[in-house]
Amino acid sequence: MTRIAGVDPRTAATLPAVVEATPDHQVDTIAEIAAAAAAGLEAMGRHGRGELLDAMADATERHRDELVKTAALETGFAVGKLDGELTRAVYQLRFFADVLRDGSYLEATIDRAGASAMGPRPDLRRMLVPIGPVAVFGASNFPFAFSVLGGDTASALAAGSPVVVKAHDSHPATSKLSLDVLAATAVQTAAPEGVIGAVYGRSAAVHLVAHPAIRAVGFTGSLSGGKALLDIINRRADPIPFYGELSSLNPVIVTPAAAAERGETIGTELAASFTLGAGQLCTKPGLVLVPDNADGDALAYAVRNALTDVAAAPLLNERIFNSYRSETRDLREQQHLSILGDPRDGSTHAGFTVEPIAFETNVANLHRDLVTEIFGPVTVIVRYPAGDVEAATRSTMELLPHSLTATIHHGADEDTLLAQLTEIARPTAGRIVYNGFPTGVAVSWAQTHGGPWPATNSLHTSVGATAIRRFLRPVTYQNAPESVLPEELHDSFGAVARRLDGVLVLPTER
Amino acid sequence: MTRIAGVDPRTAATLPAVVEATPDHQVDTIAEIAAAAAAGLEAMGRHGRGELLDAMADATERHRDELVKTAALETGFAVGKLDGELTRAVYQLRFFADVLRDGSYLEATIDRAGASAMGPRPDLRRMLVPIGPVAVFGASNFPFAFSVLGGDTASALAAGSPVVVKAHDSHPATSKLSLDVLAATAVQTAAPEGVIGAVYGRSAAVHLVAHPAIRAVGFTGSLSGGKALLDIINRRADPIPFYGELSSLNPVIVTPAAAAERGETIGTELAASFTLGAGQLCTKPGLVLVPDNADGDALAYAVRNALTDVAAAPLLNERIFNSYRSETRDLREQQHLSILGDPRDGSTHAGFTVEPIAFETNVANLHRDLVTEIFGPVTVIVRYPAGDVEAATRSTMELLPHSLTATIHHGADEDTLLAQLTEIARPTAGRIVYNGFPTGVAVSWAQTHGGPWPATNSLHTSVGATAIRRFLRPVTYQNAPESVLPEELHDSFGAVARRLDGVLVLPTER
Repeated sequence: MTRIAGVDPRTAATLPAVVEATPDHQVDTIAEIAAAAAAGLEAMGRHGRGELLDAMADATERHRDELVKTAALETGFAVGKLDGELTRAVYQLRFFADVLRDGSYLEATIDRAGASAMGPRPDLRRMLVPIGPVAVFGASNFPFAFSVLGGDTASALAAGSPVVVKAHDSHPATSKLSLDVLAATAVQTAAPEGVIGAVYGRSAAVHLVAHPAIRAVGFTGSLSGGKALLDIINRRADPIPFYGELSSLNPVIVTPAAAAERGETIGTELAASFTLGAGQLCTKPGLVLVPDNADGDALAYAVRNALTDVAAAPLLNERIFNSYRSETRDLREQQHLSILGDPRDGSTHAGFTVEPIAFETNVANLHRDLVTEIFGPVTVIVRYPAGDVEAATRSTMELLPHSLTATIHHGADEDTLLAQLTEIARPTAGRIVYNGFPTGVAVSWAQTHGGPWPATNSLHTSVGATAIRRFLRPVTYQNAPESVLPEELHDSFGAVARRLDGVLVLPTER
Repeated sequence: MTRIAGVDPRTAATLPAVVEATPDHQVDTIAEIAAAAAAGLEAMGRHGRGELLDAMADATERHRDELVKTAALETGFAVGKLDGELTRAVYQLRFFADVLRDGSYLEATIDRAGASAMGPRPDLRRMLVPIGPVAVFGASNFPFAFSVLGGDTASALAAGSPVVVKAHDSHPATSKLSLDVLAATAVQTAAPEGVIGAVYGRSAAVHLVAHPAIRAVGFTGSLSGGKALLDIINRRADPIPFYGELSSLNPVIVTPAAAAERGETIGTELAASFTLGAGQLCTKPGLVLVPDNADGDALAYAVRNALTDVAAAPLLNERIFNSYRSETRDLREQQHLSILGDPRDGSTHAGFTVEPIAFETNVANLHRDLVTEIFGPVTVIVRYPAGDVEAATRSTMELLPHSLTATIHHGADEDTLLAQLTEIARPTAGRIVYNGFPTGVAVSWAQTHGGPWPATNSLHTSVGATAIRRFLRPVTYQNAPESVLPEELHDSFGAVARRLDGVLVLPTER
């Protein structure tokens, strides 16, 4: 057996191993148990699954200290940051319980039999039903909110789809503890055995995604990792939906008026945003368009100043650490690219600890090597001729890969320019942020955390209420006796919003 | 230039060519014009696009005689069948205009700024927006309803996404005439140039799907054709969504009680269903489970009787004709498989004309070679021990590839059995039909025409209101000034259903 051990990023010391790589035959068993649990999980109904999620939230809260302590050791993140992230994970579980109780995610639709322009029409009743067992890939950078306890797990369980998590190798102990908390909760409720499981190790990941019982994959990770999983899916006899959140540069555009009105504030906040979580957020602003004038200079100066107060911080694992070092070294060697301020020497730090760094260049010098995502506390400020913000934005956006977000800092009276910049930005991202920063993704009904490839596959979000849609599929019942219909499609049911003969009708009891 | 000519299926005579294969550079131009039209098509708004679709429906109706006459020549379908199909295509265009006026397809959602359990939340406003230019592949078997004038075109234009159709080689003249009708209508309305275009020929198809301006593909065709397009998509720098309707066997289960109550009627209707459109419907029942008792015998006898009244009919093209001949010949040579009744000799028919045929076997003899889709007027009746319908259904469904539909003919008092059969059938199909036949797919709000692979990709329908979802993607605006928001996300807008701070609100004006 291969034991999988975490590593303390602050020291690079290997931690005691608490899990073993899951052998293929055991992956088979776990996937089959998940498949066997599907009918029972669906039969719990919306309210039963809502109670399950609430109970999981309660249990997670009860194990807060232990979870945070374990994750702190494996990730090197500050306890305060991890406490906030756990609060987010707990909130997310409860939020999807609310989504279930609301019930309109089912898209329940009834067309009663009758005449139509095309002749008699049968009785048709449509609803979204669970897609079946889902493989969820934990992410290194969110040991709670995008891992075992995370949004993919919450939305898949809400949908009625059992979950098998591929735990991230960077936090095996946190993953195991999280799984134990969720699985124990499931046992205490009416949930069937196997609604939540986990596998460990790279071979198990490959075997899981290829397993016939798995009906969809939720993945947050690197573009290369996502592509490798897609290759496995494309080789399946039945390719399944893949929801990958893969790569995002998150460009920020600062208009001349914005720089004039509050350049210093923007610079200070930018430094905080791109170094948050040691720059290991998928929404980190990685490229910032700043006017090449005195206001832009003030902004850049504020970034430089603010960075002097940002402490060196450990990256999550050796791979990320090595990539950050080699990729920032490559940038240092680029012509026409300068370092903002005096770079601090990080070479003597312990473990995977690195210094933040900001680069500066001119829009005329921008090329593809400068517009790739680098995980870690680094950003590139790109100066543009102040009279030319629209053209600079257009040429830059054409060069960039698509992102989860695009951000526009604008001035008070720039309606026309703002409409133009929005039109340029919208095709490139799933969320457009105005006068703010893309880091911080609220869990809510209206959130979109997704974007055109390579950000994601562009059609769905992985954060917010509609994330549940990824793990559902539509079924229409034609002339079905009421006895075989889900209750939400019964004539007399009134507890969820439904479309009846083409007309949207609100719930009668709320 | 390669000229592309239709062929009269009744005689196999080549028809006068009216189009040429589109050279690659012209495909580029057409795709770029479509991309340039996207902003203008969206700017027409829901009502503007509704008027465009209504005008397209009117124009199609005005050209009915010419369209039907042209299609009759290229497809060999009866004028009555084509008249009905054109009515369907016209209805579909108008239906999506209604979907636009309703507006709830936008999923407009507003979370106003405020406190949350996770701290202050920004103002977030989410809506679905057009995905961009869509490549639509015309299908051989529906020259109107699934081709240039078809559902993919209607739903993509409704979504606000320009359309480039790859015309099917089997009906180039019908495609060209259809395109001329739609394009002329677009010119007469406020629509920008290029909202609808078409390309011809296999090389153009490949070039179109690989073109960076194309943002999604709608395809109705063969599994092999779909896989070839998926390979092209997977090689793109940015893989795009592919909506393929690929293959469907559409199993029918007749319970012993159903056979006892109305075996003869079921047999007669089955013969009509599997020979409709010369068996070239993606919803054709291709495998029918019938009890192995006297009631089942009566059903089979009724099929045999009804077939004597079904005339020989031409298949759509030489490829389908050759496949039908070779695949039914393979079945004739199978052991444990008999022909129902006396097969008619079709070898002297002109053109691509074939005879319908039904085979019969026992569930114990079922194997994978017997459960592949054959395009054309053929079905396989599978007899099972009358006391064993659940086990026979379970073992059969495990052997079958997934389908668009599954059909259950049941008796009056079979609630328990019906629940079991529904549970077995639902994971295998997107529409479950009770006491009817799968052929005939109503265009309505509650329809699902999709199913797990290889039927489609399982998450979306290609018929009915929600087909529009395929050509939309979510965007969230964070703290956006109202001036940049689509009107449906303005505070004061009340004409569409929206979710406001988590609560679904109906339109105020309807």
